[in-house]
Formats: sequence, structure tokens, C-alpha cells
Amino acid sequence: MKNIKVALIQMKVIDNKDKNLAKAEKLINKAVKNEVDFVMLPEMFNCPYQNDKFPEYAEKEGEKSWRFLADIAQKNDIYLVGGSIPEKDNKDNIYNTSYVFNKKGEEIAKHRKMHLFDIDVEGGQTFKESDTLKAGSEITTFTTPYGKMGIVVCYDLRFPELSALLSKKGVDFILVPGAFNMTTGPAHWELLFRSRALDNQVYTLGTAPARDESQSYVSYGNSIIVSPWGEVIDRLGGEEDILIANLDLDYLEKIKKELPLLKHKRYDLYSLTEKN
Amino acid sequence: MKNIKVALIQMKVIDNKDKNLAKAEKLINKAVKNEVDFVMLPEMFNCPYQNDKFPEYAEKEGEKSWRFLADIAQKNDIYLVGGSIPEKDNKDNIYNTSYVFNKKGEEIAKHRKMHLFDIDVEGGQTFKESDTLKAGSEITTFTTPYGKMGIVVCYDLRFPELSALLSKKGVDFILVPGAFNMTTGPAHWELLFRSRALDNQVYTLGTAPARDESQSYVSYGNSIIVSPWGEVIDRLGGEEDILIANLDLDYLEKIKKELPLLKHKRYDLYSLTEKN
Repeated sequence: MKNIKVALIQMKVIDNKDKNLAKAEKLINKAVKNEVDFVMLPEMFNCPYQNDKFPEYAEKEGEKSWRFLADIAQKNDIYLVGGSIPEKDNKDNIYNTSYVFNKKGEEIAKHRKMHLFDIDVEGGQTFKESDTLKAGSEITTFTTPYGKMGIVVCYDLRFPELSALLSKKGVDFILVPGAFNMTTGPAHWELLFRSRALDNQVYTLGTAPARDESQSYVSYGNSIIVSPWGEVIDRLGGEEDILIANLDLDYLEKIKKELPLLKHKRYDLYSLTEKN
Repeated sequence: MKNIKVALIQMKVIDNKDKNLAKAEKLINKAVKNEVDFVMLPEMFNCPYQNDKFPEYAEKEGEKSWRFLADIAQKNDIYLVGGSIPEKDNKDNIYNTSYVFNKKGEEIAKHRKMHLFDIDVEGGQTFKESDTLKAGSEITTFTTPYGKMGIVVCYDLRFPELSALLSKKGVDFILVPGAFNMTTGPAHWELLFRSRALDNQVYTLGTAPARDESQSYVSYGNSIIVSPWGEVIDRLGGEEDILIANLDLDYLEKIKKELPLLKHKRYDLYSLTEKN
């Protein structure tokens, strides 16, 4: 059996960048004692999920948090999806960006959240990311010895076209640093991970910040792994914790053979393409 | 409040076309006592779901089962989605076809299943529709006083591109005569209705044949209605039954306003289109 051992780090995020980095390091050190190949941090793991904090915490590529991630990946000999952090470009635009590093600590991919999260649910959650953030414009994949992986950030997962395009590009995994809230989490989090996994015949992995009722935006937590048959393999609750799982890579081919959804697409009748 | 009152007829289907039509009529007569506007029958409501029966039961448009449906719609002053039946064209090709009639008994739409169901799950369900059936090649919508509706047949629902295209065409409902089985039903039926409703901000309605363990293909039943927030409004079990629900049409706009998924699509970066 070919497999990959993964760890999802569901950490509490506070209003102190250095302490967030230290917490991430502590939990990753704990996770790697289980000989994992791959670690993923949550969305905005170094910064509170607040519009007023994104500009304050934002860094350029290659600065402190980026270097921290590169070092951790190299030191621990792991593939590391660095959750996401606020990234500043040379024009002071800010993005919600996920950096990915290989075992040598080299950046092998970078995804800027493509769909910004602007919602206003009556009696529930309100948030407007576009007040401070710019949207990315690239669909992101990378290749590892464990298979091809696609990465999206949180709200990106709500758009079936993006996941279907990743599947068309041949990914085996869709990775999602995300932070649903106490309105959308209970209603939609598991549903989205299960349906994207099933429809696209991939494993879906989601890492969220731990729940913290003292924050203005309360993360639902519930970091999750779903199989290509749409079954929840494991999920956490709201508390700070690490989810470790050993995923069978051969199972991907078994599902595609038994239920050949990707082969049965009617691309003669409809067309889904990336614009360049 | 603008609304639509619907009835889904979860009927047992046996190896006798006339008795199936009589059963459908009896249950529809029962349903319309509740002053419903709209009735939907299940997939293959007049014919056992078996490859050897499709050619035997197949009819041309305008023949017995078609006339039966047209009469029922007109007599009861209802919109009627005639589940599906095996349809024969002039070249003796057979399709899995859903006919839709307005309150005057006029055919206003017709959907031929576009994705044929060929699966082979180890230790589970095996079926190969393409042994006897041809696939349709049209995406199907129609307009009613209650909103625009799209129709797909069973396995068609597994393809997110088709539902997203219906949503792009502005439908408020995705209607699904379907017959999942005892492998795929418990695993995927509810998941697919919930995710298509949520992603596309529509009501999804599915009508299945009642469960009958004596058939070679055992329908899961569980006829279902899901809201545009992805919540199950109601569902049946396996037994013969009628699901009646009153659906709030204003709720569609409320959800689209609070969670503007359709507005947030990045059609500048990816493209989903129908080929002609």
C-alpha cells in the first residue's frame, strides 16, 4: 500500500505574531514525532482574522513568517502547507496567501485566495474581506511524491468550478486552509469537503484555527479529512488539537475505477476551462 | 409570501406498465387533494429499472405513457414532471427521458439523461445503462409562474458542471427523477442534493421509486427536498409514500443576498459554458 501520513495543526491564533509562530512550531514539533510526511497549518495562522489586523500583520514574501515556514519544513523533513498569512506585494496590496514548502525548505507553490469572503447573514455572520484584501488570480497545483495537490483558501472551496478545474488538472488532493464561522461552519463545512471530495475523486483536507469565543470572528474549527468516496475519515472538534491520518493512495484509483465520474464527464456538451 | 406547493410521488414500480400507470394516477389523485401546484414522478416510473426491460417498455413520444401524463396534468391543473420513461426515437435508439407538462397538458420540456450510469463497485452495485440506452445531448430548462426550473435525470446530478450551468441559466429549482441504489443511496444521495442546492442557490427536488427488495435493482427511495441553504426540508424513507411541501420562493433571493455565491464567481479566471 502506498500512503501519505498527514498532520493538520488546529491551533489557537492570538493577537501576537511571534507567539503564533512559536505555537505553530511547538505543535509541528509534536506532530512530527508521529513520522508524518506532510503538515498543514490553518488559514491566517499568524494573524487574527480581522480586517484591521491584516495590514498590520502583512509581510512581503521572504520575510519573517515565510522564513519561519521554510526553516520548519527543512528542519523536519516535511512538506509544509503554511496555512495562510496576510501577504503584502510591492504595491502594498494585501493578499490572503498560502505558501507551500518541500522537504528542503524550498517554496514550491503559493496560492492567493481567489474568491474574497463578503457575506452578511441576517442574525448570523457578517464579514467583508474585500475591505482590506485583494483577490488572487491563479489556480494553484504542485507535485509531490505522494501525488499531485491543489490548494485553495477557505471561501474558494465554495466554487465548484475551481475544484473541478483542479480535478481536470489531475490532482489527488485538494488542500484547504480555512476558517468557517459559527454560522457557516455547522451549516456547510463538512458538506463542502464531502461533496468536493466525491465529485472530484480526491482527498480533501481542511485545517482551521481552533475555536476562540473571545475573538471577533469565531472559527468553527473542525479540521477535517474526507476520502474520495465522500466519507469523513476524521475530524476534530473546536479545541486546539492535531489531526493525524494515514491516507491510502491506491484507494484513489479504486474509486475512479468503480465509479468513473471523471471519465463520464460530457465535455463534448459543456466546457470548463481556465482563462489565461 | 410567494410559494409553490409540490408533491413527490415515491411509488413502487412493478413489471406491468398498465399497473404502473394506474398506480401513478391513484397516488397523483391523492396528492392533488392537498391543492398542489406541481407533481413529480420517479425515474423509470412505468418500467422496472433493468436493461432487458428498457427496450420492451420503450415508447415513442405521443404514445400511451406520454398521453397518460398529458391527460393527468390537464385534468388536475398541475405542472407535471413525468419522472422518466424509456423513450424510443425513429431510429430505435432508446433514451431515459423525462417529459414535463403544463397545466393545460402541453409538453413544455423534455430531458434525455445526458450521463449514462455505468458503475461497478466491488462488493456493491454494478449496472451498465449504456448496454441499452443512448445519452441525450441537451441541457433542459423551462419556465413556470413559480420560477425557472432545470431538469436532470439521476446520474446527471453527479456532474457539478451541469448543475452550475443550470444555475448560470437562472434556474430556481433543479428537479431530479432518480433511482439511487442501496450502495450509492446511503453514501451519496443526500450529499448530492444538499451540495447542488447550496452551490447553485436553488431548491433541489428528487423523486425516487419506492424500495422493493424483490427487484434486481433496489431503489434507495428517500425522495427529498433541499433548500438553497443546503438544508433538508423533508425526505421520505424507503416505503411508497408522497412527500408534500410548501416552498417559499422569496427565500431564494434572501439566500442570494446574504451569501452572494453566484455574484462572487470568478468568470474572469475560469469559464463554464454550454457547447452548441
